[in-house]
Amino acid sequence: MSNAMPRLRGILSPVLTPFNSKLAPDPGRFLAHCRKLIDAGIGLAIFGTNSEGNSLAVEEKLDLLAYLLDNGIPAERIMPGTGCCALTDSAALTNAAVSKGCGGVLMLPPFYYKDVSVDGLFKNFAEIIERVGNAKLRLYLYHIPPVAAVPISPELIERLLKAYPGTIAGIKDSSGDWDTTEMLLRNFQSSTFDVFCGSEVFLLQTMRGGGSGSITATANTNAPAIMDLYASWQTPEADEKQAKVTATRKIFAKLPMIASMKAVIARELNDPAWAMPRPPLMPCEPNEVDAVMVELKSLGYAY
Amino acid sequence: MSNAMPRLRGILSPVLTPFNSKLAPDPGRFLAHCRKLIDAGIGLAIFGTNSEGNSLAVEEKLDLLAYLLDNGIPAERIMPGTGCCALTDSAALTNAAVSKGCGGVLMLPPFYYKDVSVDGLFKNFAEIIERVGNAKLRLYLYHIPPVAAVPISPELIERLLKAYPGTIAGIKDSSGDWDTTEMLLRNFQSSTFDVFCGSEVFLLQTMRGGGSGSITATANTNAPAIMDLYASWQTPEADEKQAKVTATRKIFAKLPMIASMKAVIARELNDPAWAMPRPPLMPCEPNEVDAVMVELKSLGYAY
Repeated sequence: MSNAMPRLRGILSPVLTPFNSKLAPDPGRFLAHCRKLIDAGIGLAIFGTNSEGNSLAVEEKLDLLAYLLDNGIPAERIMPGTGCCALTDSAALTNAAVSKGCGGVLMLPPFYYKDVSVDGLFKNFAEIIERVGNAKLRLYLYHIPPVAAVPISPELIERLLKAYPGTIAGIKDSSGDWDTTEMLLRNFQSSTFDVFCGSEVFLLQTMRGGGSGSITATANTNAPAIMDLYASWQTPEADEKQAKVTATRKIFAKLPMIASMKAVIARELNDPAWAMPRPPLMPCEPNEVDAVMVELKSLGYAY
Repeated sequence: MSNAMPRLRGILSPVLTPFNSKLAPDPGRFLAHCRKLIDAGIGLAIFGTNSEGNSLAVEEKLDLLAYLLDNGIPAERIMPGTGCCALTDSAALTNAAVSKGCGGVLMLPPFYYKDVSVDGLFKNFAEIIERVGNAKLRLYLYHIPPVAAVPISPELIERLLKAYPGTIAGIKDSSGDWDTTEMLLRNFQSSTFDVFCGSEVFLLQTMRGGGSGSITATANTNAPAIMDLYASWQTPEADEKQAKVTATRKIFAKLPMIASMKAVIARELNDPAWAMPRPPLMPCEPNEVDAVMVELKSLGYAY
């Protein structure tokens, strides 16, 4: 089967998931935030790390995805996180995403057991791909050893690409380490394998290295500047723009990132409910948020 | 509400989960293995680490639990693992376990995010306890930093015990480190808080320190000897028995434990299907199992 769907490239955001006062996902606020990101040109990597994707039950994720699609968000601009500890869960989520026409899925390795073999990880991904059994599947691997503590090794990528060349579509590198991104670009980037850096701090380096873009948390709160940098990476102003984008991220990162981004959105929208993550994550203290707001304003942001 | 149910003490096993050729849980083999353990006096810590509990979807776990109960396994001898990354999943599993009369639940902390605050972990457990809202709940904390990479700190135990004194019922210490077990015994062991060592290697030390027993993988394959050690820990022969039990575990641990125990059961029952774990875990190579069998026989085991 051919796959004529346009490839997801450029800037994607692991979309923050708002919760209501009962700590249930809030579909209305979620949809509004997704629309804002889509309007800014950002692809929707829903259910990622910064989405608290693993703090959601499979059913909660299926419901949120269906709600977006029912309300006109284009499926081809969505790359849901579908990698769970149980391959049955990963297969169910991936199957739903592909059958609804999502542009891809971003898949964590199963992350409970540590020090598992490449054979075992290969078999996990292979089993999911076989169960989904849909040539339209574009599977992006998610390498985030600082959190998952289970890496995606070059050997694993090679084996998966050889076995499923039309399906293994790329990787998000959240190693936090440019040497790794550079290695991935050199060894794997192609017209059918997209390397995304996991933070816009590396966006210019990634684009200069032939990469496809960035899937980055801060696109939730700094979409225009990151999109502008992406659009103008070949211009003389690019380094200056990168420096400002990097400085902005560092402000958010002074607090736990998910809570700080949620807090800033809550301030921006004058909607305190937005500030609440789901446990085990906790909201920021108001005085901490005050300090972040002051720093953002000093950089010229009008939150 | 009073809770007259007998407390789970002594030896429990994180029951191995057999899979069929399609990698689905095999309820018939699971039931037979549970019956064998119950007959040997072992409590059933189903859905633990060595059960590949996190490689199972919530629905798969609910189905297996219901199957055991429908087939006469006594609920009060079951302590299912119910701690997931999503508190909605943890609450659903815990609610099912308590409403069916399980003797307790063994709860991992949410293990995707690392370096989370004690506040956030407290709120996770508190939220689950409140959602379940059943005074019959006995919640055993599961401390296994080598795998979960999210510890249960003494501060967290103190706060939970203060907030939910009738509910927080004990801890399984799988730190692999006697100093930690000893600290837990000294600070927390009581008539309403049971400290279990996570390996029978520490069983004699745990009992001599006033502890309640062990929740240990190798009870799947060495139940009689471990039960005998437990029953006779105050006798002069105890140290000798401990030495043999410890030596036996070390044989299994020469290979990845889950796969090696499954392989030995497959040999013992002449049932090759038993040997298969679910990815990302992989079965042992036959020649590796041969070597384990030789060593077990040299210790006098008739597998």
